[in-house]
Amino acid sequence: MMKPLADIRVVDLTRIIAGPFCAMLLGDLGADVVKIEGPHEGDPIRHIGAQVNDLSWYFAGFNRNKRSVVLDLRSPEGFATLEKMIARADVLLQNYRPGVLDEMGLTKHRLEQLNPRLIVAGINGYGSTGPYADRPAFDFVVQAMSGFLSVNGNEGEPPLRTGTPISDIMAGLYTALGIVSAVRARDLDRDHGGAGAGQRVEASMLGALMSSFAYLASDHLATGELPQRTGNDHPIAAPYGLFDASDGQIAVAPSTQAVLDKFLRVIGLPDLCSDPRFATNALRRANRPQLNALINAQVRNDTRARWVSRLNDAGVPCGVVQNLAQALNDPQVLHQELVIEVEHPGHGPVRMLGFPIKFSETPCEVARPAPRHGEHTAQVMRDWGIFPDKEPQ
Amino acid sequence: MMKPLADIRVVDLTRIIAGPFCAMLLGDLGADVVKIEGPHEGDPIRHIGAQVNDLSWYFAGFNRNKRSVVLDLRSPEGFATLEKMIARADVLLQNYRPGVLDEMGLTKHRLEQLNPRLIVAGINGYGSTGPYADRPAFDFVVQAMSGFLSVNGNEGEPPLRTGTPISDIMAGLYTALGIVSAVRARDLDRDHGGAGAGQRVEASMLGALMSSFAYLASDHLATGELPQRTGNDHPIAAPYGLFDASDGQIAVAPSTQAVLDKFLRVIGLPDLCSDPRFATNALRRANRPQLNALINAQVRNDTRARWVSRLNDAGVPCGVVQNLAQALNDPQVLHQELVIEVEHPGHGPVRMLGFPIKFSETPCEVARPAPRHGEHTAQVMRDWGIFPDKEPQ
Repeated sequence: MMKPLADIRVVDLTRIIAGPFCAMLLGDLGADVVKIEGPHEGDPIRHIGAQVNDLSWYFAGFNRNKRSVVLDLRSPEGFATLEKMIARADVLLQNYRPGVLDEMGLTKHRLEQLNPRLIVAGINGYGSTGPYADRPAFDFVVQAMSGFLSVNGNEGEPPLRTGTPISDIMAGLYTALGIVSAVRARDLDRDHGGAGAGQRVEASMLGALMSSFAYLASDHLATGELPQRTGNDHPIAAPYGLFDASDGQIAVAPSTQAVLDKFLRVIGLPDLCSDPRFATNALRRANRPQLNALINAQVRNDTRARWVSRLNDAGVPCGVVQNLAQALNDPQVLHQELVIEVEHPGHGPVRMLGFPIKFSETPCEVARPAPRHGEHTAQVMRDWGIFPDKEPQ
Repeated sequence: MMKPLADIRVVDLTRIIAGPFCAMLLGDLGADVVKIEGPHEGDPIRHIGAQVNDLSWYFAGFNRNKRSVVLDLRSPEGFATLEKMIARADVLLQNYRPGVLDEMGLTKHRLEQLNPRLIVAGINGYGSTGPYADRPAFDFVVQAMSGFLSVNGNEGEPPLRTGTPISDIMAGLYTALGIVSAVRARDLDRDHGGAGAGQRVEASMLGALMSSFAYLASDHLATGELPQRTGNDHPIAAPYGLFDASDGQIAVAPSTQAVLDKFLRVIGLPDLCSDPRFATNALRRANRPQLNALINAQVRNDTRARWVSRLNDAGVPCGVVQNLAQALNDPQVLHQELVIEVEHPGHGPVRMLGFPIKFSETPCEVARPAPRHGEHTAQVMRDWGIFPDKEPQ
């Protein structure tokens, strides 16, 4: 079977993180993604992050399955070539601030004139319309504005940023879902006698991150009550959190009474809930310190590995707290190929994050390593049938 | 234009959070999503979270754009009906542990026999193969195992869980992207003379969350160094974080030297970097307390609103720390319709999170509110052409 986007050409004008992540997802799904870079330094990420053998592994990990074309968009020739590429593309992906595309001359009208089937996709901080549309965005600031900081941290302590650039990644993911959906809508339109027209599609870091609030949002909207920062304690359930095994901590999350009963049976406290201090979830939350002390006294009698095995076997979600080195070398992570090694000619093998989506018939794979700056300029022109001084648009 | 999934039928066997979130995304994209529920209580989320007028707003928010069919899958009749639905569906979505589908009789062979065009989609904790495939999963435990806890928290303090069920949401998102992509691969196969076959597609909470590590993963893989917990301070850049305005804090993230220069100019410290203590980013990180004190002394001279306006106008990403109430009522959030109100007959209006993806021609909308338990059993049978005691499979 052909890959989902095997026939789709993407002109990628994005840089840094959210946009290139989105473009990488499209490439992983089989699209012909062409990264347009300026004639000088190209994507700044080429020079950011740890370098090995003169290659940024950050750049390598985020730009697999793309080709690089150098165009000077400020020169008439470069811009004319971009327009020819747009005429032949299925998707134009950009993360400019609103209005920049217009200033470049790529107005809605011009883009439709160049290619009525074009899907014009945007990633931005806050959305392309509204009072904050023009604001520059950055993950930390979006975490602050979205309310994410306000639910991250320990009880009684200040709001806290989370360590991964979560709003960038989620915005990239939503935009990729939007683009593949717009491709399908175009197919469907054509199959039903329409023109197979493209459309505009976008996602913002703010909207993406806010979608993660799930029940925290619905409970707040229903009651007006604010979710509290509760560190590793679940705001609703007790027991829940980290407990002390003989050689370190285990993470346990008994989410229902049935799972809690299993947990207490396995750790040797089957009658705990008949103690009046712990008879209900509300009482257990109120008496969490005494509850946790009793549980820790039991859990301390065995090792992490044994508890993880015994509790999961009994149906109780349980794991250990791994640092990033441990996580990236975890046997399940390796089995699932969530870390892969890609040969980069001239730079040696590069380890990078793998593919979170597993397809049985059209598996994601690295068809090409991250490109050198401008590596494919001539090749793409040839493949896409673009020749200088011919075919005026 | 028809919505991207207007012709797609989804049989949704999932419960709780990640699976229903994925199914909701498919419904938002126009699919006919049929939620199969047991004859007694149905999805447990119907009874979890804050209730208003006898309706869980958590359930309402996660189950819009779905119909509910009650089937007792343990009865021969119920199971036979499920098989008839599968024969007529495009997607079967499930979040069972590996092997459960087989135990039910829905082996790979049987599903292919019922419907060779079926896309069989799975959401799980750790992946359907590998040493942890059989483990039950829960967001907190996946946060611990993935390394996410290890990068969340303050310097010198223990690892910390983040407040939103981030691994569930991201797994739902990746699975939705996988499903729409598999639908497109099927179309493409048909268009190129193939059978238009379905395939298996899945995503895990572990794989989804690990994809968020981005440069933290690439830097670790390149150097072997572990990312540290740094609270609201960026591990690499200084200044960065929360600063004290006259009426509260602002979040500022000057990510490059150019943005830093703008920041320092706007706050009235244009020559700060000529101070030998602050001449380089490394020095500024080392002298962060003195640096932040100087900056706070300036920032304290004006209000949050004025700094947010002045700094963003100058191209410096800046915002305030909002709690969830402030975020959900933020003018940009309202303008972007990231919170919407949906009328639920018999329960009144329900406020819920809106649509992170914005399409110009096929906008997401709430075509139907979350269903009552079994509300559409007869209707779906009629629509899908399923009649008892007819059409033996």
